Amino acid sequence: QKTITLPQHPRGCHVITRKIYEALPELAAYEIGLANIFILHTSASLTINENASPEVPLDLNDALNRLAPEGNHYRHDDEGPDDMPAHVKSSLMGPSLTLPVSRGRFALGTWQGIYLNEHRNMGGPRSLVITIQGQL
Amino acid sequence: QKTITLPQHPRGCHVITRKIYEALPELAAYEIGLANIFILHTSASLTINENASPEVPLDLNDALNRLAPEGNHYRHDDEGPDDMPAHVKSSLMGPSLTLPVSRGRFALGTWQGIYLNEHRNMGGPRSLVITIQGQL
Amino acid sequence: QKTITLPQHPRGCHVITRKIYEALPELAAYEIGLANIFILHTSASLTINENASPEVPLDLNDALNRLAPEGNHYRHDDEGPDDMPAHVKSSLMGPSLTLPVSRGRFALGTWQGIYLNEHRNMGGPRSLVITIQGQL
Repeated sequence: QKTITLPQHPRGCHVITRKIYEALPELAAYEIGLANIFILHTSASLTINENASPEVPLDLNDALNRLAPEGNHYRHDDEGPDDMPAHVKSSLMGPSLTLPVSRGRFALGTWQGIYLNEHRNMGGPRSLVITIQGQL
Repeated sequence: QKTITLPQHPRGCHVITRKIYEALPELAAYEIGLANIFILHTSASLTINENASPEVPLDLNDALNRLAPEGNHYRHDDEGPDDMPAHVKSSLMGPSLTLPVSRGRFALGTWQGIYLNEHRNMGGPRSLVITIQGQL
Repeated sequence: QKTITLPQHPRGCHVITRKIYEALPELAAYEIGLANIFILHTSASLTINENASPEVPLDLNDALNRLAPEGNHYRHDDEGPDDMPAHVKSSLMGPSLTLPVSRGRFALGTWQGIYLNEHRNMGGPRSLVITIQGQL
């Protein structure tokens, strides 16, 4: 189990598969198992989506902005108009991924990438707790 | 692995972190691991969101009501107008959380709390299966 | 850990609990544990919802079509109008389930079934990686 911290990302969806691998050299030792990646925040989230077209993260972010638009219909607005929509998006996407591990790699499909979704305009660095369970 | 039952909560989002800790004294023995909390129902759900402002659960519930409004556009309405929207919300939020465990506690961020989302008007008690895997 | 492949399902939500059990005879040997089911695609997803009324999968699919409608508001449309909405729905529902296992069965509630959500019109076969961790 380890905690890694990603530098601030701009608001939007970002493919971070390579960054996770780089931060997790110990993954290579696992023959089989599960890896849980858990974000320690409530205004950013993790998901799996396409890793190929650069349009997909942009369109996914647009879709989230439509699903939880900014506006004056929230009670909770002390931290700015992007705050409560960020909380809604975080719960829609979820705070964690539990990924199968096989032969030292995440057992992802060909087109799957790990996404960090930054829902705040200025979210700051984001920390992830990664827990691997399996057979060495 | 144990099953705990929470008493009926009113429709809405509820921070239940403390209730989970109270029901799970055995968690304290785990040095490191993962805890899976799984709700045995399809019209209530679990999520992680902010544990501080009492406005966040209210706004999250409002957002869910906007995303899956009641109305006469559902086939499935035998159990009342709140039933099918509850099924949609349950799948949007998800039936389970898999949380990292560290030194006998959930490794949550400072502002993170465990939410029970009750999507029915009169949902009754809700049961959760909790499974911990890790090192003592 | 094993990979199973389901034949093409039509666009919509499908209860596949029985198919998963049939593909997973080794589950019966586990006294207690967790089973992770992970779909290797970004335009189909997994969720838990009601296993009884045949109207629920239809209404859930309708709700997803409302939440992520087709239209000319996406950048990513090379693969057809159903593609980018499928990516959005996949992230809303999620790529995986982590289910408690008890006495050789998934510890699901009475009304809970495992759903495959096919978000493409012609999605083709879909592969799932299933990882079980627990005590025999």
